[in-house]
Amino acid sequence: TGTFDFNNDSHRRYNPLTDSWVLVSPHRTQRPWQGQQEKTSAGGLPAYDATCYLCPGNTRATGPINPKYESTFVFVNDYAAVKVDQPPYEQADGEDGLRARLLQVQGTRGTCFVICFSPKHNVTLPLMSVPEIENVLDTWTVLYNKMKTETAFRYLQIFENKGAVMGCSNPHPHCQAWCTESLPSEPAKEFTSLRFYKAKHGTCLLCDYVMLEQQDPVRIVVQNESFIALVPFWAVWPFETLVLAKSHTASLVDFSPKQKSDLADVIQKLTIRYDNLFETSFPYSMGLHQAPINPVEDESQLSHFHMHFYPPLLRGATVRKFLVGFEMLGEPQRDLTAEQAAQRIRAVEEVHYLLK
Amino acid sequence: TGTFDFNNDSHRRYNPLTDSWVLVSPHRTQRPWQGQQEKTSAGGLPAYDATCYLCPGNTRATGPINPKYESTFVFVNDYAAVKVDQPPYEQADGEDGLRARLLQVQGTRGTCFVICFSPKHNVTLPLMSVPEIENVLDTWTVLYNKMKTETAFRYLQIFENKGAVMGCSNPHPHCQAWCTESLPSEPAKEFTSLRFYKAKHGTCLLCDYVMLEQQDPVRIVVQNESFIALVPFWAVWPFETLVLAKSHTASLVDFSPKQKSDLADVIQKLTIRYDNLFETSFPYSMGLHQAPINPVEDESQLSHFHMHFYPPLLRGATVRKFLVGFEMLGEPQRDLTAEQAAQRIRAVEEVHYLLK
Ligand SMILES: O=P(O)(O)O[C@H]1O[C@H](CO)[C@@H](O)[C@H](O)[C@H]1O
Ligand SMILES: O=P(O)(O)O[C@H]1O[C@H](CO)[C@@H](O)[C@H](O)[C@H]1O
Repeated sequence: TGTFDFNNDSHRRYNPLTDSWVLVSPHRTQRPWQGQQEKTSAGGLPAYDATCYLCPGNTRATGPINPKYESTFVFVNDYAAVKVDQPPYEQADGEDGLRARLLQVQGTRGTCFVICFSPKHNVTLPLMSVPEIENVLDTWTVLYNKMKTETAFRYLQIFENKGAVMGCSNPHPHCQAWCTESLPSEPAKEFTSLRFYKAKHGTCLLCDYVMLEQQDPVRIVVQNESFIALVPFWAVWPFETLVLAKSHTASLVDFSPKQKSDLADVIQKLTIRYDNLFETSFPYSMGLHQAPINPVEDESQLSHFHMHFYPPLLRGATVRKFLVGFEMLGEPQRDLTAEQAAQRIRAVEEVHYLLK
Repeated sequence: TGTFDFNNDSHRRYNPLTDSWVLVSPHRTQRPWQGQQEKTSAGGLPAYDATCYLCPGNTRATGPINPKYESTFVFVNDYAAVKVDQPPYEQADGEDGLRARLLQVQGTRGTCFVICFSPKHNVTLPLMSVPEIENVLDTWTVLYNKMKTETAFRYLQIFENKGAVMGCSNPHPHCQAWCTESLPSEPAKEFTSLRFYKAKHGTCLLCDYVMLEQQDPVRIVVQNESFIALVPFWAVWPFETLVLAKSHTASLVDFSPKQKSDLADVIQKLTIRYDNLFETSFPYSMGLHQAPINPVEDESQLSHFHMHFYPPLLRGATVRKFLVGFEMLGEPQRDLTAEQAAQRIRAVEEVHYLLK
């Protein structure tokens, strides 16, 4: 029956970073869609919204008044998932073997921050200039450094939910940073994989991956001297990308000025292409993976700064990919291949469709 | 600062079945919601819909005509994610070390089935009688047995996506069954955990868990002689449940008639309670985990039949939990505790709100 065709035959691909698999079904892109349609984001927002709890000078739900900030603005989340002030968890005495074995608990202290990217209610990363994005990176770096030097917490997870479909309840450009005393599962898995790979091959998995992808640019989307954005071979979300430092750099605080402006440049170019793909404000969750603020063992040496972008849209501004039944019970499944997705992102223009 | 309070202090809980963690933030249920509102399912559907591709006698998108079936109906998915007929994948010669290491692929053959629960367009499991649900279980059992005896595929993943919010594009009551030559990641992780636990403690993790939960019924939702439905200690989704066989039974084909009717009874009672919780057709993805159809090593002995229900709703029929930024980049996070969720599901009536 001929030879195996990556564009037509089903296969699984292995993700060496999280030690997991994804099922790829490239022939399935023909499927008609009769299900839920997503709302596209409003557009035509004002630069200032008196009802927005993130705009400068406004009062937040729990009472505090925002300063009249002019660039970025950081504050502690009014409904934080973790808090600094709670008693330590101690396992009750006399817990028998079965309870201790099957009902394992760890107390988790921490702090949750909200970080506004801009005083303007109606911009997003792709509509900001490179210096403005650099300013966001600087804000992240200051916060990372502050948590590193002033707390005993383990990890600072910086992430952005963009778009109502990604659970974002306010279009004012912002991200969050959750600082926790435990290392969250995803970076923990990555450190296990980086450690295993290093022990086995003597090199950094992500340094090797950057090198490999540059040999044959089928999955590359944008790059400059210091950073590369690509659809990873093992991508789960239709237009998922991975932004990698080209050199082995552990965290934000280790960046040179050149690296910082190169990262801002790649973020801008990537998110412009995302918006242009379906001429909509492209929803996603994105986040940074870097060295723990309080690293243990070999974590600082292993760490290789990168960002994940997980966008849900599949075919146009209103049709998303659902990772549901088979994905939740069996394993993640995708339709178009990583190479097809990269080709689509490369094919759109570099200039934002709203600015043409 | 007092003693640790499970209803107010953040903590992580360990899932021994998949070797993962969930962050629990019980104080966070106070958070107001200004984000996306879900549509509730239409309701008032007709028993027959001429435009439905699953109703008896109708023509499907790709041409075939459905028989005038009177109970359940099984057919091969017209847009299957895996197919029987494709060439085997062979790794190209001369692939250097880096490619072989970082771009790992497996060809995946298989078959995808659609299983209609009923000829009636306007019923769902909670609106079906126990004998009608038993008939669905029989249909699953026949398919499982057929795949087991007639194919060399490894696993049959039976799952249902219910509701538009869970990517279901047709309200006609149906589920899917994807049969694949590889063991999908989720059951694979579970077998690893069951094996590890058995080696360490000499017993079955899930037999022990059933025993433990019965000692203190805070997380139990419904039970009968053969099955128990509970919110697992490590639940991620707000009202997630786990339905467990009380005795160590490997798969559908091992059920006694009593077990089969008891499972139908628990499924009916659980899904009625789900619908009553917010007086809406409660969306979820659910699925069965059982022995592989072609088990290897100790998988048959390790297997303990169970079902997972993953429902997205958090507070009312239109407000869902989003597992996004922190959950995708860091680790899953939930607001109310498993015990609070179980209490809420127990507190509603046993009779379906539409049938009162
Ligand atoms: O097969 P369906 O119902 O068209 O599709 C649905 O279920 C599949 C299996 O969970 C998912 O891969 C799809 O994303 C979802 O929309
Ligand atoms: O904190 P927010 O923006 O209110 O909430 C959003 O992001 C959080 C972190 O990813 C999630 O836990 C919530 O489910 C989501 O709605």
